Amino acid sequence: MQLPLEIDADAPLSLQTQLIGQISTSITTGRLKPGSRLPGTRALSEQLGVSRNTVLLAYGGLAAEGYVETREGAGTFVSAAAPEQHQFVPQAMPQAARTAPRSTTQSAAAPKYNFELESIDPDLFPGNVWRRLMMRRMQSSRFNLTQQGDPKGSRRLRDVLCRFLGATRGMTVDAEQIVIVTSIQQALNVVAQMLVRPGTKVITETPGCSLIAPLYQRYGADIMPVPVDHDGLMVEHLPECRHGVAVVTPARQFPLGATMPAARRQALLDWAVETDAHVFEVDFDSDFRYEGSPQPAMQAMDRAGRFIYAGSFAMTIGPGLRIGYLVLPPDLVERAIEATVLLDYAYPCQGQGVPWLEQAVLTDFIESGGYDKHLRRLRRAYLERRDHLAATLAQHFADLDLLGMSSGTHVIWRMPNRLAGALECEARARAAGIAVYTLKFKTISGAESLPGWDRYLLLGFAALKVPAIGAAINRLARSLQ
Amino acid sequence: MQLPLEIDADAPLSLQTQLIGQISTSITTGRLKPGSRLPGTRALSEQLGVSRNTVLLAYGGLAAEGYVETREGAGTFVSAAAPEQHQFVPQAMPQAARTAPRSTTQSAAAPKYNFELESIDPDLFPGNVWRRLMMRRMQSSRFNLTQQGDPKGSRRLRDVLCRFLGATRGMTVDAEQIVIVTSIQQALNVVAQMLVRPGTKVITETPGCSLIAPLYQRYGADIMPVPVDHDGLMVEHLPECRHGVAVVTPARQFPLGATMPAARRQALLDWAVETDAHVFEVDFDSDFRYEGSPQPAMQAMDRAGRFIYAGSFAMTIGPGLRIGYLVLPPDLVERAIEATVLLDYAYPCQGQGVPWLEQAVLTDFIESGGYDKHLRRLRRAYLERRDHLAATLAQHFADLDLLGMSSGTHVIWRMPNRLAGALECEARARAAGIAVYTLKFKTISGAESLPGWDRYLLLGFAALKVPAIGAAINRLARSLQ
Repeated sequence: MQLPLEIDADAPLSLQTQLIGQISTSITTGRLKPGSRLPGTRALSEQLGVSRNTVLLAYGGLAAEGYVETREGAGTFVSAAAPEQHQFVPQAMPQAARTAPRSTTQSAAAPKYNFELESIDPDLFPGNVWRRLMMRRMQSSRFNLTQQGDPKGSRRLRDVLCRFLGATRGMTVDAEQIVIVTSIQQALNVVAQMLVRPGTKVITETPGCSLIAPLYQRYGADIMPVPVDHDGLMVEHLPECRHGVAVVTPARQFPLGATMPAARRQALLDWAVETDAHVFEVDFDSDFRYEGSPQPAMQAMDRAGRFIYAGSFAMTIGPGLRIGYLVLPPDLVERAIEATVLLDYAYPCQGQGVPWLEQAVLTDFIESGGYDKHLRRLRRAYLERRDHLAATLAQHFADLDLLGMSSGTHVIWRMPNRLAGALECEARARAAGIAVYTLKFKTISGAESLPGWDRYLLLGFAALKVPAIGAAINRLARSLQ
Repeated sequence: MQLPLEIDADAPLSLQTQLIGQISTSITTGRLKPGSRLPGTRALSEQLGVSRNTVLLAYGGLAAEGYVETREGAGTFVSAAAPEQHQFVPQAMPQAARTAPRSTTQSAAAPKYNFELESIDPDLFPGNVWRRLMMRRMQSSRFNLTQQGDPKGSRRLRDVLCRFLGATRGMTVDAEQIVIVTSIQQALNVVAQMLVRPGTKVITETPGCSLIAPLYQRYGADIMPVPVDHDGLMVEHLPECRHGVAVVTPARQFPLGATMPAARRQALLDWAVETDAHVFEVDFDSDFRYEGSPQPAMQAMDRAGRFIYAGSFAMTIGPGLRIGYLVLPPDLVERAIEATVLLDYAYPCQGQGVPWLEQAVLTDFIESGGYDKHLRRLRRAYLERRDHLAATLAQHFADLDLLGMSSGTHVIWRMPNRLAGALECEARARAAGIAVYTLKFKTISGAESLPGWDRYLLLGFAALKVPAIGAAINRLARSLQ
């Protein structure tokens, strides 16, 4: 550790005194914290261009005054309780800002049952398999954190993604069309960098994800919200504009859970071709299909090179694995790479911003069939939870109307008019120790654009086990009726 | 794996025939690749709502035609050579785009000796220690990829960073002022999100890093380049504007290597206070100081809350470790968190976009003293390489003029007038199998603003061992004279 000390040979104070003064000041002002190890005397004498004896005498002086202590064979350390030592509070940091809890969710008592949205069950994380794959990769002589490679990301990972997307999403893609990113949100940034200029029309779903419009507005976008109904984006409301960018969730609309029917998909495609627009399909959570077959991605019907697709592993492995991907028309690949460089330059790494080790392990996991097995296990568990949630709710509410049942990890309950509004119900449930959500949730925007939005209650079922779901719904029903 | 198949019970074709037709089409068009495992017959019959026998018969038919093969006990797989199987090339992907090498560096013959910039020596990566710490963390029952936590990043990591920044950069900071990011480039994005609006004046160093201006221009910034000389930013050229953002590298100017003298630092601070500007100190590579003491970060002299500081571990551990940090005035912390959410939302992770495991391991590494030891080891190795580079160059060029010697991992050679220009020298060296660089390097912009820019040659010494440096400089000297 090199300390920022300056010794002036021409100053009236002796070198040793200057050194004691500067180090003790660093300690009393909190820059050198208790327990910190001071540099070795040889290293510090070289750094300052003074004799080693000067440093030894200074350290001795500091020790005599109690600022530091020498541990035999280990070095010199700042004392646990140095003279005048105080818990330093930076001047500029108001006390309130330092102690106030950040989020209101954290400050409220944690609910006993949380039907959390966008959540997954950590107990279903394939810890042992993952550990084994990580360890094997780390044993490799190639393992270090300086790997060079293709800026699009690991070639092997892009190859297995081609297979996976071909089989499960009906997409015919070449590995050269894939760019590895950290997350869907980073993919949104890449698309902003590539396609959004001041005045670009960006079509967003409303209600929809709240993290899209403010991002694109920073790039000067002109946001054009298009309403969604129970079949997804209402394509008849697509604006007449040229070179727009439509950000859509046809596989499973966020937050209403609709899968877009074929006729609307075709209309969206026609609109894109007619207006020279790009359609950006964002696939947040369509990995689990409980009823019928998954729909092919819209990219599968693209002949004009107008479609971009983004997916990630946040809902299947965990958001702590920072790996997602973009599938691009060939003419956008170079611009996407330039965008990832501006967003998270990592010279000379493969895949800007995505760790090499995790890419290698994920590839092994998919290639070995482990990911497929994991998806089946998740689907079974989530299907059981979804069914139990619906069955228990139906016991209490005969006229139950649930949306978004066919996939994903949350259901949308359109509540009967005899119950209070959703916001009121959310508050009553919270008072009973149960967290449920409304269309006013922080990652959802545009609730008001949906007629009767205050009748929709959102319940995530991924993070709760079956017995907890039953108990929670019973308690919820009591609190609402 | 759930396949996007659709069966129509009312269609004239039998269910079995529909299934054979759709699966064989998926195979011949390349969406289902050789070796892919088909879903189990029970799972597929449930998905499609047909009898299991229908699926069994369809799989039998596909096998009889050679599309798939059944492996005892393992399942049904797409055959390695299915009928009409062909390597599918997506229509829209021009052949040229698929085969052309991406970067000219990759296509040119690799140089025998590469004085690479922004590079580090993978052999100095503390692989064994890192592996051990990783394994210990992965054994923890808490290990999974769904960790929740503070959006600012791991509290423990921010605590050890406070100590580290206090000791080595003279900064007095509270852990609440630190936000963990993936890299300095992401930190630049965060600052853009927070402070740059259409018309915001952004002051950049020229020559300087080429990844700043194009990023900030996307946010509508009005870029105001300020020239640098051998003492860093020429503060007398700071523009008269209000609420600007100055992005500076006072610890070690990139690319010229200057440490900004105290008088200029004071002038920059005065300018910021007078004009209500923010100063963003970017510290790319000041971790190794070879001569004298490191300078405190400019944040250490900030009383007005106008300074932001960004650093990372890309040059000390490796760019594959995606961890950097922002130190912010207290009033900007919340806005920085909002920006990280828009850039790389990871609900409900701690530290948007930064993997939990790596944060934990890095914290352990710093806390155990391993990082300090590693820095000392790197400094020793790099010092030896720098000295050998300078000594060998001096043997050939008596009038040697080197800049940026006191820190970092590259030196800047101002070549005598009797030699050719830098671009010409770079080309001659490359012909002799040696890569050296000029101020026209891809991550440097504004070369022309430096008088005599074509006399500067840049040599990175981190990735070359001492014997290679000697051999390379001898060969370089022959090629230039």
